[in-house]
Amino acid sequence: MLGRRRRLAILAEGSFAPLEGKTAVGVLRYRSTEVAAVIDSTRAGRTAEACVGLGGSIPVVADVAAAAALGADSLLIGIAPQGGELPPAWRATLRAAIERGWDVLSGLHRFLADDVELAALAAASGATLYDVRRPPAHRPVAAGRAAAVEALVVLTVGSDCNVGKMTAALEVRRELDRRGVRAAFVATGQTGIFVADRGVAVDAVPADFVAGMVEELVIEAARESDVVIVEGQGALRHPGYSGVTLSLLHGAAPAALLLCHHSGRATYRTPRAPGERAREVARSGEPIIPPLVDLVREYELASAWVRPARVAAIALNTLGLDEADARQAEAGTALATGLATVDPVRHGAAPLADALLALRPARRGHATAS
Amino acid sequence: MLGRRRRLAILAEGSFAPLEGKTAVGVLRYRSTEVAAVIDSTRAGRTAEACVGLGGSIPVVADVAAAAALGADSLLIGIAPQGGELPPAWRATLRAAIERGWDVLSGLHRFLADDVELAALAAASGATLYDVRRPPAHRPVAAGRAAAVEALVVLTVGSDCNVGKMTAALEVRRELDRRGVRAAFVATGQTGIFVADRGVAVDAVPADFVAGMVEELVIEAARESDVVIVEGQGALRHPGYSGVTLSLLHGAAPAALLLCHHSGRATYRTPRAPGERAREVARSGEPIIPPLVDLVREYELASAWVRPARVAAIALNTLGLDEADARQAEAGTALATGLATVDPVRHGAAPLADALLALRPARRGHATAS
Repeated sequence: MLGRRRRLAILAEGSFAPLEGKTAVGVLRYRSTEVAAVIDSTRAGRTAEACVGLGGSIPVVADVAAAAALGADSLLIGIAPQGGELPPAWRATLRAAIERGWDVLSGLHRFLADDVELAALAAASGATLYDVRRPPAHRPVAAGRAAAVEALVVLTVGSDCNVGKMTAALEVRRELDRRGVRAAFVATGQTGIFVADRGVAVDAVPADFVAGMVEELVIEAARESDVVIVEGQGALRHPGYSGVTLSLLHGAAPAALLLCHHSGRATYRTPRAPGERAREVARSGEPIIPPLVDLVREYELASAWVRPARVAAIALNTLGLDEADARQAEAGTALATGLATVDPVRHGAAPLADALLALRPARRGHATAS
Repeated sequence: MLGRRRRLAILAEGSFAPLEGKTAVGVLRYRSTEVAAVIDSTRAGRTAEACVGLGGSIPVVADVAAAAALGADSLLIGIAPQGGELPPAWRATLRAAIERGWDVLSGLHRFLADDVELAALAAASGATLYDVRRPPAHRPVAAGRAAAVEALVVLTVGSDCNVGKMTAALEVRRELDRRGVRAAFVATGQTGIFVADRGVAVDAVPADFVAGMVEELVIEAARESDVVIVEGQGALRHPGYSGVTLSLLHGAAPAALLLCHHSGRATYRTPRAPGERAREVARSGEPIIPPLVDLVREYELASAWVRPARVAAIALNTLGLDEADARQAEAGTALATGLATVDPVRHGAAPLADALLALRPARRGHATAS
């Protein structure tokens, strides 16, 4: 990961749970062979599988020393606190890792390499601090150019933050790979970048250039792919992140959307105060997520402001449901929306891939006779 | 301006024309008494009035030396190139100003204080480089809190970039001042900040925090005002900037919108290639601006994703039309949309203020008997 093969210790202190340590869970799902241990002193002694249902027997340990004993050689920050600051409580852990000469891989908005103390420690120990959220220096402005690529461009969109947009994109990509379709994944967030080893964390890009950055990534990915799957961010109705969502929609200019939803999620996750972490617990006064049919219409409408797109299918995150309830949730959503619906993690992404490939235009030069 | 009373030389090299030097024109309109000269070697010898219809006899000169002879003591960068980079051709002008000890006021995305050569020159001469686009360090995430303020929150929105959103906001504020209504202007772009001496250039803020930043500004402004008028940015259908627009809409959570349009503008201004300046000339393939009635509906719909808002009136920029055509454009737009329509620069903002005040709720504690 990021330059060399690693033995990662993933820092998920106090948050190594299915819906909290989003980055930790994503890395465990897609690059678990590079993970030596997870650090969460509140869950030390358990396995990753026991905590988040993923990662098999990878041990959860209390600190850097315990992870080192298991062969770890790099620290990956596996939690994304709202606001992206470095929680003061983690500083000792980071110091311990850097003093051992471990590289640190971070997706925080606050860049580690700009932290005077940590940068000095890293210089002394020879460690490298990777801030994958640091935006590229150039400043492209989007102009709808991605609408012209020959590849089928797909964007995952969501009913809220943290519903499974990255996972749906990666699962569809894997399914297309399996079918021999040349498919590219465009990472737009820190976890996606850790998984794909490339991409841009668009939410850290100055707002004027988010759409332009995505436009560039799509055009580049389309050169060698027949399907380009862009990782979505935020949600059109989320008061904090809707702008990022619309920038992706208009910058990527997709022809197809996959709408992602966490089954049972009823209200938007908004912070109570600046810097507060997103929470699972619904609170009175939180905005209500409307019916998915309304969201389908809204996403198609907002797409059409730049380029018309269709919601091709629904990726339903059924985490927390038993098998019967999950099947029922899928069937109920399909009935309510008229769209193919599946939890791609639980039941495979084949229905999503089918729905997307049905939208792929006949290739130029291979028009069918009519 | 920015700390002290100044005698500004405004740099508008090659662009001191009504629709190009947006920042130059804005500063001339609202703070002309602080302007000593405008630098544009292609128009030297003319007056500001002759070039942009504003600024009376303020002279246009060829260079810093000529501006110095007129008493200038600070350089304000009056052009906003697409992409926000410092055009190489301006470097000599900046050097000349800084070597004289002039402060430089910049709204470029590329910060002057981070430019090694210019920063060293400024350190040597005692000049200060003001980068008004540098975002605040904190990182607020919006949660729809601005919807709860008691003041009437108004956002100017537009059919495109550069149609008069800042000007409409400032003209309405002036009209409300005249009527004794406590009104605040919230600047969200570099020109607005130069005019108001405060604000945040939201398009330079990392995308995740744009809505949160605006939410903060609105809540703060509402403490001492009955009407808060927020300067809008971009347009919902602009492929490059739509995300910034939606962030403002959801962060400010206005109850009322003023839709701004440049009469006769038919297509969106999008850059042909990254870094290229926006142009006036319509080009084939540029997206077409839909009828204003459609835009009214779209802005109201997108607002309602977080908080319902009504378009109260239309501010029509009739620059370039003669008086009869301007009156006809206003009447035609009012007829087509059913909304009060006026060019606030040409005919005053009274109709806009009337329409907004009609939307102001009865003040709490002063409910009218029914």
